[in-house]
Amino acid sequence: MSRLPIAVDAMGGDRAPGEIVEGAVRAAAEVGDVVLVGRSEDLGTEHGLDVIPASEVIAMDADPGSSVRRMKDSSLVRTAEAVRDGKASAMVSAGNTGATMASALLRMGRIKGVSRPAIATPIPVPGGTPTVLLDAGANAECQAQWLVQFGQMGAVFARERYGVARPKVGLLSIGEEASKGNPLVKETHPLLAEAALAGEFIGNVEGRDIMSDDVDVVVTDGFTGNVALKTLEGGLKALVAALFGAFGASDEAKAAAEVLMPQLLPLYAQLDPDSYGGAMLLGVDGVCIISHGSSSATAVVNAVQVAADMVDHGIVDQLRTAVST
Amino acid sequence: MSRLPIAVDAMGGDRAPGEIVEGAVRAAAEVGDVVLVGRSEDLGTEHGLDVIPASEVIAMDADPGSSVRRMKDSSLVRTAEAVRDGKASAMVSAGNTGATMASALLRMGRIKGVSRPAIATPIPVPGGTPTVLLDAGANAECQAQWLVQFGQMGAVFARERYGVARPKVGLLSIGEEASKGNPLVKETHPLLAEAALAGEFIGNVEGRDIMSDDVDVVVTDGFTGNVALKTLEGGLKALVAALFGAFGASDEAKAAAEVLMPQLLPLYAQLDPDSYGGAMLLGVDGVCIISHGSSSATAVVNAVQVAADMVDHGIVDQLRTAVST
Repeated sequence: MSRLPIAVDAMGGDRAPGEIVEGAVRAAAEVGDVVLVGRSEDLGTEHGLDVIPASEVIAMDADPGSSVRRMKDSSLVRTAEAVRDGKASAMVSAGNTGATMASALLRMGRIKGVSRPAIATPIPVPGGTPTVLLDAGANAECQAQWLVQFGQMGAVFARERYGVARPKVGLLSIGEEASKGNPLVKETHPLLAEAALAGEFIGNVEGRDIMSDDVDVVVTDGFTGNVALKTLEGGLKALVAALFGAFGASDEAKAAAEVLMPQLLPLYAQLDPDSYGGAMLLGVDGVCIISHGSSSATAVVNAVQVAADMVDHGIVDQLRTAVST
Repeated sequence: MSRLPIAVDAMGGDRAPGEIVEGAVRAAAEVGDVVLVGRSEDLGTEHGLDVIPASEVIAMDADPGSSVRRMKDSSLVRTAEAVRDGKASAMVSAGNTGATMASALLRMGRIKGVSRPAIATPIPVPGGTPTVLLDAGANAECQAQWLVQFGQMGAVFARERYGVARPKVGLLSIGEEASKGNPLVKETHPLLAEAALAGEFIGNVEGRDIMSDDVDVVVTDGFTGNVALKTLEGGLKALVAALFGAFGASDEAKAAAEVLMPQLLPLYAQLDPDSYGGAMLLGVDGVCIISHGSSSATAVVNAVQVAADMVDHGIVDQLRTAVST
């Protein structure tokens, strides 16, 4: 199947451009055509990939809105433009998340009928299929109708990305009964129950269900979603650090931990953000993959793989259909 | 020091009355005077403790408001009344959380000046001091001024319960900058910055900070707090289950896990909800400890210990002072 190259923002991320370029080179060999976007002088020529030149770099902590408006020749803006202009089939960036969203939104535009794009983040489930959490931070304040669309888009994403034939869609709340929650949840519940979904609405779910196979898509506003995501990341990180501390506590413990490594490494890999392949901004008129700021080369390879899969699945057209029903 | 007995709701909790009574007996020996509240015929007489009779039981899944209003001779309502009537110095229940809050609020009343009581839940920090998260679920919708009081009360609780001389109080948001967050957070931030606190306001914190020593008190609305708490519980549970799966994967792995147990058990114990001693409802005019629904006898002992400590520290008077400054 012919596919336009995937555009990779070579300057975005804590470890850019080194790890990003290395990942792009591996992705070009393992996945398919990749084009780098950035300052040619910083990228060298050894990589052998095509480069779309961009003279500016949006810092990781820059204000998203103003930097995207001001820095028209930044790598992020040029990456989004490459998709808009038909030079690339998708964009991948590990850079400033807010600026990535703003670039994608301003350059690609929204899918017709979508009120607000949302960040869909896969949450690993040990031994199971990841749960798609959205919105994981694009919209700090939401309206009920937007959440309904998040449910529609999230179900399509879970189906296309993870092959769940009929995803279970849950509304994040503080009790299973329809009467439990804040005003936004109470208003959204009956609307989601009536909405056409590429899956089944299972009602309210709680925080403890996210990392389980009881639900495939968890719908929430971007404030709550971002808090849940970061709380989980922090908790797992603290526990893993404590475990490594215990494993290194004595020579005896070290030797025992060695024996367990073949069992523990697959679990560790499953929980490692670098293996998820990044989050996807659903609702813009193009494929936009948002990788973790600390992305390694491997994370970039996985992100390019997801971008290519989503292009091949025609995800944008499927999302367009989902929100128009 | 003379202290009135701690009243324990003997009928509340998934494992009531068996584990609750057993825990109360141990607490009476290890901590101090305990009085049971419940149906005498269900409690037997072997325990040797005083009993305040109550003929009704509020089910774990009953509607809190209506059951507390209707079931005036329920163990929960009678437990709260014992504190109000000067027969007990504090109440402990592992029963229906909403009904526990309603009983405490209706029978004890609020501390003068407190707008809304909040649930303060300790979050374990491996190798560190627990972080106090509040509100963990009492108020699904909050006003900025209530959150300021949560910060004032939470700081006093962190100081008295964990001995943190000058607790670091953070406002839960989705970015560290004061401009980040939903409208409630943006409105609360400047108010907390100006409020008199038994500690220091360190600004916004994120979900990943909760399980760390970077912050001692995390202030949020009861919807977000409950989602964060349950997300963390679910995530840690999933990870611990996956670990036990790995430990049991082969005879070799089992043997290695045996060797590691002396290192892992203290960590496991630190993360076990039974060892936290329960959450405290801050803002009612009495000490009310809310234990996990699945509380074991050990959890009851720890909850009685916390209740006794808080009585001895004069926590209610300290909270009264904190919100009036």
